[in-house]
Amino acid sequence: MTYRLLIEYDGRPFCGWQKQKGHLSVQEALENALTVAIRAPAAVIGAGRTDRGVHARGQVAHFHTELTLDTRRTLRSLNGLTPAAIAVHALEKAPDGFHARFDASSRRYHYYVSTRPAALARHYRYVLPSPIDFCIMNKAAAHLLGEHHFGAFCLQRSATRNRVCTVSHAQWIQEGRAHEWHFVIEANRFLHGMVRAFVGTLFEIGRGKRSVADIKRVLATRDRSAAGPAAPPHGLVLESIRYAR
Amino acid sequence: MTYRLLIEYDGRPFCGWQKQKGHLSVQEALENALTVAIRAPAAVIGAGRTDRGVHARGQVAHFHTELTLDTRRTLRSLNGLTPAAIAVHALEKAPDGFHARFDASSRRYHYYVSTRPAALARHYRYVLPSPIDFCIMNKAAAHLLGEHHFGAFCLQRSATRNRVCTVSHAQWIQEGRAHEWHFVIEANRFLHGMVRAFVGTLFEIGRGKRSVADIKRVLATRDRSAAGPAAPPHGLVLESIRYAR
Repeated sequence: MTYRLLIEYDGRPFCGWQKQKGHLSVQEALENALTVAIRAPAAVIGAGRTDRGVHARGQVAHFHTELTLDTRRTLRSLNGLTPAAIAVHALEKAPDGFHARFDASSRRYHYYVSTRPAALARHYRYVLPSPIDFCIMNKAAAHLLGEHHFGAFCLQRSATRNRVCTVSHAQWIQEGRAHEWHFVIEANRFLHGMVRAFVGTLFEIGRGKRSVADIKRVLATRDRSAAGPAAPPHGLVLESIRYAR
Repeated sequence: MTYRLLIEYDGRPFCGWQKQKGHLSVQEALENALTVAIRAPAAVIGAGRTDRGVHARGQVAHFHTELTLDTRRTLRSLNGLTPAAIAVHALEKAPDGFHARFDASSRRYHYYVSTRPAALARHYRYVLPSPIDFCIMNKAAAHLLGEHHFGAFCLQRSATRNRVCTVSHAQWIQEGRAHEWHFVIEANRFLHGMVRAFVGTLFEIGRGKRSVADIKRVLATRDRSAAGPAAPPHGLVLESIRYAR
């Protein structure tokens, strides 16, 4: 049997989604809780491997077990057993052969910023240290749309060979409180560090350090050193994963 | 000269707004920062004295000084000198004789809840442990509107004699994410522990432990022990203060 989980987490206490020796990952925390909840070990495979300090509101994961679970009860147990920084919102039987990562047709991230100091949202929103032009950033973001080789926005140490992705959304949105904005980015797949490299490069454009057209030049280089520095992780949230089936 | 401050804070690291020996209050943290920023001691008087663990997005305070301040520069210094859990959003010259507390015509609080487990918002939103009927709570909340003696919703140890307040708003609102709601409560003045006693009593009504009409009976007793237990502080945010002038 394959089961699907919908998970929210605060990335701060974890070394990221992915298991890593000597550090607590979200994946390991979930596997530990699951082992107790269903009294059997189970490997939890996530759709998006978020980095250290990156949050998720809509991470999806799956696991296999030979047991037939009482999903309501197991869900309640999981929320009791995971650290407070993890909330499991759904647990349900998945279609046969479901794979959280390979079956995902797109992922959506939001990058949250504030144009004024933040106290309540300080761990989930990057406070911009200087004025920025969102209109200009949106003009540049439009150049990210479509199918491109995104090597310029992928960590050099990444082992991923295929660096072609299709971006379907890339836009800064102003929220109800006028000083709060977020960048919506959706693509069929993301490379390692891609969203934070996009956002860091857009920041430089929004501050006038680079021109709007520069983003096309950066894309063409396929070289990470041509793009801007990665934006800090705490503004980034994996919002949702879409599945064709 | 009198200056007015607009302040946001995360209530968690503080013992509340009010100065208290041996504990760090928001008031003391602001006074410490101000003393350094303007190189002179100044007493900071707040409009609302929030309890330990209660947050604020729109606290207003004033202070006097003989100095003529460069407000932009002092504001920037203050944000550099206060702990990260405090953000000062505005500093401006106030009208002569302005008093943040006595001149306030009304205060607005929001109490934030979630009907499902929360990870990202867990420090700023109370997670309801069991199903609750918001429609029923709104029927009961309507009985709080108007001028009443609110002794039943005031901490017994409170020294405040006058327990008559006028409530102008009292309503639960569903947010963009359907599992998130907040209670909007506005009044000319609030008694000690009043909002949390309102919310705790409404919870009991929303869970069917009390009837809607019971809130009228509780009001009439003028006795704190007749109302429900105080709701936890971390869901409560002082949102704004209104001034006639």
